[in-house]
Amino acid sequence: MLTRKKSTTYLEDNPFVLSENRKTIPVRIWLDNVRSALNVGSAFRTSDALGIEKLYLSGITQQPPHKEILKTALGSTQTVSWEYIENEISLVEELKEDGWEIILAEQVEGSIWLQDFEFIKNHKYVIIFGNEVDGVQPLFLPLANAVVEIPQVGSKHSLNVSVSMGMILWEAFRKLL
Amino acid sequence: MLTRKKSTTYLEDNPFVLSENRKTIPVRIWLDNVRSALNVGSAFRTSDALGIEKLYLSGITQQPPHKEILKTALGSTQTVSWEYIENEISLVEELKEDGWEIILAEQVEGSIWLQDFEFIKNHKYVIIFGNEVDGVQPLFLPLANAVVEIPQVGSKHSLNVSVSMGMILWEAFRKLL
Repeated sequence: MLTRKKSTTYLEDNPFVLSENRKTIPVRIWLDNVRSALNVGSAFRTSDALGIEKLYLSGITQQPPHKEILKTALGSTQTVSWEYIENEISLVEELKEDGWEIILAEQVEGSIWLQDFEFIKNHKYVIIFGNEVDGVQPLFLPLANAVVEIPQVGSKHSLNVSVSMGMILWEAFRKLL
Repeated sequence: MLTRKKSTTYLEDNPFVLSENRKTIPVRIWLDNVRSALNVGSAFRTSDALGIEKLYLSGITQQPPHKEILKTALGSTQTVSWEYIENEISLVEELKEDGWEIILAEQVEGSIWLQDFEFIKNHKYVIIFGNEVDGVQPLFLPLANAVVEIPQVGSKHSLNVSVSMGMILWEAFRKLL
């Protein structure tokens, strides 16, 4: 009979437990013009679970404290570092100078299928997710190092942004650790 | 300059496009006592995108048509086959006789880390997701072939059920195709 884990024993056999000195992986998430505050809260929760280093918010993306963010973040706005960005282009330039690779999650010509994208150990990645309808702002396209895309076989060709984030961050987490 | 894809050209270079005769992968999803109808709609949308064969709903899980399901399903309740299940145990027994492997998404002693779980081509999988707080009903535990668990490094040890579903289904999709 299988028994549910106690939280105290939970981490002991986890191959992905990060060291005492390093509780995060070198991945930052950027939510640009994400309309739904529920999706923002979900991004915080997923970031906490996978050890994402930092969350950037820009455009119309809501910031904590916000009722709907807190509803889906379940406390993770207190554990995940975040910043609201006024000037997107200057942050991208700064990050690139500092060695961060800028990855867009988008459906564009020239995108790389998620399963083929090589997240390389010791590299640093900022992954940008855009608006639920319009996608990532065009200003990011010429500045990005790569675009990753989730292959889809259905009739809708669309995934919820929180779900897309889960898939892409899981792939990064699995490949980086 | 990267340009957004037109939907008409979208599928042509997709290595995961299923054949004309087979629009699905041999994976079925089962939502048992999932309280949030928004998560149910999200399961439909993700199932459409990844070619999940069928969705089972049981316990308190809401069924379409339901306002909140339709809100997050974005039309996919029309494209994904689904059924509400009254007798969970007899369906599990029937599925196992028919060669389906029953996989629970849960945090239990003896679980297999998601990255280590071998989804084998030509095998058939039913993946069961449980209640947001209490997890999968204990009645499923002795009947399951395996339990998969998403490793987490954060302080909350918790993921939204739609996000967990995205990660586990992505891993299955990637390994089965």
